Amino acid sequence: MTYRSPVADIRFILDHVVPIAPVSDTELFAEATPDMIEAILTEAGRLCDEVIAPTNRSGDLHPAKLENGVVRASPGFKEALGALAEGGWVGIAARPDHGGMGLPQTLNVGFNDMLSGANLSLQLCPLLTQGQIEALEHHASDAIKDLYLPKLISGEWSGTMNLTEPSAGSDVGALRTKAEPNGDGTYAITGQKIFITWGDSDVFENTCHLVLARLPDAAPGTKGISLFMVPKYIPDDNGKPGVANSLKVISLEHKLGLHASPTCVMSYEGATGWLVGAENKGMAAMFTMMNNARLNVGAQGIGVAEAAYQQALSYAKDRVQFAPIIEHADVRRMLAEMKAEIFAARSIALACAVALDMGRATGKDGWEARAALLTPIAKAYGTDVGIRVADRGIQVHGGMGFIEETGAAQYARDVRVSAIYEGTNGIQAMDLVGRKMMDDGAAACRLLQEVEDEAQSARGDFPVLAEDVWQAAEALREHTEWMLKQGMQDRFAGAVPYLDAFARVLGGYYHLRAAMAEGRNSARGHLAAVYIRRLMPLYAAGLLEAREGAEGLYALSVEDLGA
Amino acid sequence: MTYRSPVADIRFILDHVVPIAPVSDTELFAEATPDMIEAILTEAGRLCDEVIAPTNRSGDLHPAKLENGVVRASPGFKEALGALAEGGWVGIAARPDHGGMGLPQTLNVGFNDMLSGANLSLQLCPLLTQGQIEALEHHASDAIKDLYLPKLISGEWSGTMNLTEPSAGSDVGALRTKAEPNGDGTYAITGQKIFITWGDSDVFENTCHLVLARLPDAAPGTKGISLFMVPKYIPDDNGKPGVANSLKVISLEHKLGLHASPTCVMSYEGATGWLVGAENKGMAAMFTMMNNARLNVGAQGIGVAEAAYQQALSYAKDRVQFAPIIEHADVRRMLAEMKAEIFAARSIALACAVALDMGRATGKDGWEARAALLTPIAKAYGTDVGIRVADRGIQVHGGMGFIEETGAAQYARDVRVSAIYEGTNGIQAMDLVGRKMMDDGAAACRLLQEVEDEAQSARGDFPVLAEDVWQAAEALREHTEWMLKQGMQDRFAGAVPYLDAFARVLGGYYHLRAAMAEGRNSARGHLAAVYIRRLMPLYAAGLLEAREGAEGLYALSVEDLGA
Repeated sequence: MTYRSPVADIRFILDHVVPIAPVSDTELFAEATPDMIEAILTEAGRLCDEVIAPTNRSGDLHPAKLENGVVRASPGFKEALGALAEGGWVGIAARPDHGGMGLPQTLNVGFNDMLSGANLSLQLCPLLTQGQIEALEHHASDAIKDLYLPKLISGEWSGTMNLTEPSAGSDVGALRTKAEPNGDGTYAITGQKIFITWGDSDVFENTCHLVLARLPDAAPGTKGISLFMVPKYIPDDNGKPGVANSLKVISLEHKLGLHASPTCVMSYEGATGWLVGAENKGMAAMFTMMNNARLNVGAQGIGVAEAAYQQALSYAKDRVQFAPIIEHADVRRMLAEMKAEIFAARSIALACAVALDMGRATGKDGWEARAALLTPIAKAYGTDVGIRVADRGIQVHGGMGFIEETGAAQYARDVRVSAIYEGTNGIQAMDLVGRKMMDDGAAACRLLQEVEDEAQSARGDFPVLAEDVWQAAEALREHTEWMLKQGMQDRFAGAVPYLDAFARVLGGYYHLRAAMAEGRNSARGHLAAVYIRRLMPLYAAGLLEAREGAEGLYALSVEDLGA
Repeated sequence: MTYRSPVADIRFILDHVVPIAPVSDTELFAEATPDMIEAILTEAGRLCDEVIAPTNRSGDLHPAKLENGVVRASPGFKEALGALAEGGWVGIAARPDHGGMGLPQTLNVGFNDMLSGANLSLQLCPLLTQGQIEALEHHASDAIKDLYLPKLISGEWSGTMNLTEPSAGSDVGALRTKAEPNGDGTYAITGQKIFITWGDSDVFENTCHLVLARLPDAAPGTKGISLFMVPKYIPDDNGKPGVANSLKVISLEHKLGLHASPTCVMSYEGATGWLVGAENKGMAAMFTMMNNARLNVGAQGIGVAEAAYQQALSYAKDRVQFAPIIEHADVRRMLAEMKAEIFAARSIALACAVALDMGRATGKDGWEARAALLTPIAKAYGTDVGIRVADRGIQVHGGMGFIEETGAAQYARDVRVSAIYEGTNGIQAMDLVGRKMMDDGAAACRLLQEVEDEAQSARGDFPVLAEDVWQAAEALREHTEWMLKQGMQDRFAGAVPYLDAFARVLGGYYHLRAAMAEGRNSARGHLAAVYIRRLMPLYAAGLLEAREGAEGLYALSVEDLGA
């Protein structure tokens, strides 16, 4: 199978489904002209196809290794990451003042989608660096910005995020890593962090760790957490990597997938760190980093789904059992539904990205609220689609899907964690029904109104599909109004199915827009029918489940669950 | 985590949900008294918990290996398989004339469920031997029976099934392995077979291969296939393994899971074989073997789901993030739904087994038709539940679910192939809507009538749940009647969602029976509500999808799918 980046689909979506034109029309993103967008996506696609994708299988077979305290990246990764750096891709959305391209996040999401399809283990490396760049841009002092940003943006140095500790996962506030003032403006960081993606490698001159830690006498929980920059090598007076800091990689995790992405247990032993942002405000800084990361993790799921789909399609065309198996109705069904789900998830992620860019460029609350609303949906649905499509990809391969050489299983193994990291999909759903509804559902209702209005105007050409979408949006709106009257426990109990229902309604809407752009008898029109008639209806089951609330779940005691 | 076989659940189901009593009342199974059933299940459970389960993780870490042409089983497997043989468990359902216990298939399904939860890689070995025993019982000459059955039933020798070739998977009729008469009543078998589970090992005195091959001038397709017994060592005049046959293991597959189950590429090089059954009737013999194997593969899914659930439950009780995570509504929801799905799938599998036993013991068509109807449902839904629950198990573990040492990922890796082998779940669904509806839906409608009658009688105590189940059964019946008027292509296009809908209605029904037995405020009553209110409603989405037929799928051309 030869992976081909979905440049055409992304361009179509940005032209017709969630138009990027308003972004290009802002002053901030005036450079993102249609020609520029086309050039960027095409060039990114070529890099992914020709340079990155060939490293994917070999990375799985030759995992990153810890040797004498240093992580050795998988074969070919240094060169591939070098090519990414050279093209300036790490800094695609970074601000120009320190060397970034200053392009819209929307293009970065498209880029991360394509890069994830090419090699998810590899993509994680620049993704983490991008998150660090953003956190520094928003919260670091000028001195830190001037020292680190140019190196991170150029891809000479890499960045990591250090939140998790053995007892502090989703409950970040439980972390115990300490930061003690050295008296010279720096801090001594001591503690152990786990699940540190690309926590070290032999690829970069320097690896810069953003570490959450507690100052002495800090308040308990999340209010007493501060953020520190802790480089592997302390920059000297010329900004070059100098003496080694007091930190080390203790071990690498043995994981289900992402074998080429070194997941490190890190030990900080009085390592020198510099405060980023204000004391005890580390969580705010982390959230900056995490919000865009969440959207781009959604893009990971979509990218892997794309690659898994392409491979399954290729197999189904070639494999003959009675006839080429693509001619069998059930295989055809699986493939059509895979493709339809990918399109839906990709549209949602790009809609979120456009809203983010519009919010940033215009400062308008409406866009910001929409981006905030769509972020957990894009993350959870994108990764769920990644997992589901990769699993279907195995099924399309039949017995060969279980054989590792085929590569289908790798996609499923690699993408599985995307529903867990950057906040599990359960946490995304709680974010949606909790924090993101603190406006009394205003942002949600505005979006659903848009869906209904568009569906209304599509009724002439698409009487069935438009009606289906309208009904679904209306049912979701009614459910949302009902939900807002419920207590948090009931909302949380139905959060995951509610999020899934929301995503399906949006997926139906974006498919309808695609159909409207190309017409009923176009390929996109047919694909829209597959989604709206076959996959969107699951929203109803989701809402039914969400409507059940928490009571029935707690009626079963913990002992009952074990009996 | 310490695996505990679900003896209590299986007994409850056989007492109250799909009663085994009518089986015990037959002459054939008169020995299967309630005391005997209890003793068998309890003893099997103890063996699984104490002897088999401890080999599961180590088998994953130390896969079976091919060394100098011989497969070396994973550490501890020889002893564990020896204990199974010693207890007579391989022959639990085999006829007494050659040493079998002669017990109902129902108990064997319960046993395979528990054994699969303990170690799926290991369970495959006796499962294949059981299939071979059954094929020989039905089709072999007395000479072959007398020679092989005592050794297979005692577990001294093992049995394999050799169908698949590189170009002949689902399309078995495409196979090319040749069988040429040697002139002395034996045949020379030549060809290559792939995906041969437990195709060799250093555990048994002998490994007996049942091989599908073509006689010279045989008709093309499935009508020209014959079945042969091809032992690794040709038995001598005393029935002891004698000279080595001309066959060998070429390689082992590198698989996503089931690392301790050696999946062999076998080469037959003029190997001596004995015809089993009539010439060119090999497919009929293979189907005998495969039908029960399908039901027991369903049990595999259920068993692995049980083990994955137990592990997730144990983790959720211990892991504290804010509170023990089992107190979080979404984790609670996942666990309750996992448990509810396992119960539904287990009930369906046991209902199928009871029908099989009743058919065999009474010869009544009604039971046989019910068993035939339920077999594809039990296989596909059981394995889908296995995959879904194991995946949820990973999610409950959060980041730890991605770490192999945890063991949660192994369940997901191991069980994945169960939706593929013994006929993919797509093929099961086609079997359901095609061959199993050749009675114009009579068997399906009889079963749905039973569901409606029972729901009707439960209305007093369970007004909501009984109404839900009644409505679902009625909708399924209407859909079935509609479907029977459609052409095969349309049926096949909706076969998978139709099967899933059927399973959910049955799951709701069996949960309702459980609730009726224990009352509304019992743990089983609460669990029934979880299933009927939250999981059963997905049947409606399944029927909607099935109703779409094939047209919309083929409206998308192969080129459209690639665009």
